[in-house]
Amino acid sequence: MKRSLPVTLFAIITLLLGSHGVVAQQHDPLPSWNDTAAKQAIVAFVTQVTQEGSEDYVPPAERIATFDNDGNLWAEQPAYFQLFFAADRIRALAPQHPEWQTEEPFAALLKGDLEVVHAGGMAAVNDIVMATHAGMTTDEFAAIVREWVATARHPTTDRRYIDMVYQPMLELLDYLRMNEFKTFIVSGGGIEFMRPWVESVYGIPPEQVVGSSIKTRFELRDGQPVLVRLPEIDFVDDKAGKPVGINSHIGRRPLLASGNSDGDLQMLQYTAAGAGPRLMLYLHHTDAEREWAYDRESSIGRLDQGLDEARTKGWTVIDMKADWKVVFPE
Amino acid sequence: MKRSLPVTLFAIITLLLGSHGVVAQQHDPLPSWNDTAAKQAIVAFVTQVTQEGSEDYVPPAERIATFDNDGNLWAEQPAYFQLFFAADRIRALAPQHPEWQTEEPFAALLKGDLEVVHAGGMAAVNDIVMATHAGMTTDEFAAIVREWVATARHPTTDRRYIDMVYQPMLELLDYLRMNEFKTFIVSGGGIEFMRPWVESVYGIPPEQVVGSSIKTRFELRDGQPVLVRLPEIDFVDDKAGKPVGINSHIGRRPLLASGNSDGDLQMLQYTAAGAGPRLMLYLHHTDAEREWAYDRESSIGRLDQGLDEARTKGWTVIDMKADWKVVFPE
Repeated sequence: MKRSLPVTLFAIITLLLGSHGVVAQQHDPLPSWNDTAAKQAIVAFVTQVTQEGSEDYVPPAERIATFDNDGNLWAEQPAYFQLFFAADRIRALAPQHPEWQTEEPFAALLKGDLEVVHAGGMAAVNDIVMATHAGMTTDEFAAIVREWVATARHPTTDRRYIDMVYQPMLELLDYLRMNEFKTFIVSGGGIEFMRPWVESVYGIPPEQVVGSSIKTRFELRDGQPVLVRLPEIDFVDDKAGKPVGINSHIGRRPLLASGNSDGDLQMLQYTAAGAGPRLMLYLHHTDAEREWAYDRESSIGRLDQGLDEARTKGWTVIDMKADWKVVFPE
Repeated sequence: MKRSLPVTLFAIITLLLGSHGVVAQQHDPLPSWNDTAAKQAIVAFVTQVTQEGSEDYVPPAERIATFDNDGNLWAEQPAYFQLFFAADRIRALAPQHPEWQTEEPFAALLKGDLEVVHAGGMAAVNDIVMATHAGMTTDEFAAIVREWVATARHPTTDRRYIDMVYQPMLELLDYLRMNEFKTFIVSGGGIEFMRPWVESVYGIPPEQVVGSSIKTRFELRDGQPVLVRLPEIDFVDDKAGKPVGINSHIGRRPLLASGNSDGDLQMLQYTAAGAGPRLMLYLHHTDAEREWAYDRESSIGRLDQGLDEARTKGWTVIDMKADWKVVFPE
């Protein structure tokens, strides 16, 4: 049996701190959750797979939990937050692009009309992504994102976007990690748009983020190696792409998967098909007062087929209004 | 400060086991390494970046170490081991493919002539990979690989391939993890060819493997979700592809990178360009007696430009013959 210095030091420190660890387990690890079926299902599942000696015991290395991001860890209304980022970038870059004043989808975005993106479909999304997310190095892009999340504010709540994360989900991530789960993001959002901030906000390191991507190219610039972001889609991590992204990045089937839209359905199906107990979570946006209420008819985060399948298969549906004491951190 | 039940239990167990942890640090963590410059450079670097309070201290989350696999963690002569796997698959599948008796590169492979692959170049490699690595589900492929590594034996040593790993590198991986490094494989080999066995052999979990890949597609087969391996190259994790693969999978620049061929040069350049101290390791195959001796002229694992750059830039070159007490595990 190998033991390392850091572990030993940690052991001693923990010991010196006395019984706090033991006290902690008596505390409610999910204080922002009402004691309803959803919370009970989560706690029962985690207890079931972590109990040594039980026939459903899963070793820590296999405790993979995957979380969608938009509408699942942070809000996504009235538009995906990454679209607000793109619109802000369009405004910042507009002086260098006089042609955008008349060229769609840029002209509409510059007037603050985000609807143009839905009207323009994938072609519009592609134009916007390539104009705002490509052409710089990966380090430059990360700096732009970091600056934006530190300062940009949501149009209706006036909160910073990174303050519009869901407190109960932060607690769930912590609770799972406390139980030696490895928590991953598996999102349709841009992988390099998420990585600069998800470690400090969710406690999820960059190597545990799976997302959509554009291609990059390795170059030596004045002898300095850089990765340049190219205007070409590499991978779309949505719907049937999610199990593909999970396999590519993680190489192991999740034990628990958490999403909120039809874009997460294949991830939940893939998870459910694993051997032994698995937990599939669907967050249902039912709270028009504290957040937004939307499902089958929404163009953003539509939850229609997924809601039916969750009910048929007995997956756990989290009812935001009924199951959460608070939505955003105080 | 959060404390979890598992950590507390671990603390108590460590405590009960007494001072073993402290004793461990006095043991030589790299017993198969001679006390030469390479070992000294490794130990000095690890001490430097893990010493709290030092200006070169690097937090554990940023201690990323990337290792090439072929010729770096296991041997690669007289041909890449994955090619032996492919040749074995060709033989196993030949009864269903009578046309292979006359069609190249299959006919030559069936006669045991692996040279045909070098003669045929990328087209031959492509034909062989698609005939042997595609067309099944990811689970089926993993089972085929597991069966192969458990039984197949190297043509000249008669050892199992997974017993032809380098003992000093196993110790280096352990030593780094003991010092809270996260160890990754970054290999030109197939990502799904490595994942089924690297966890038990190297202690590296599937989510910390970066490699070359073919595309996969999510499908429901009789209602069961599967990922099908398609006959189409997705990503080649070699040369300039290595920093791209590192960025895609890890999203963080390595603190330490270890390779043995010109195919690793860009990974080492990318690592070296990071801020603060970094360790770049090149393993030089100098031991014709215990392993193989090859470098600038070899068609497999050629180390030419990399050797020059290592010397110019003061990277650490590991001389297998001089620096290692043993090569393979006893």
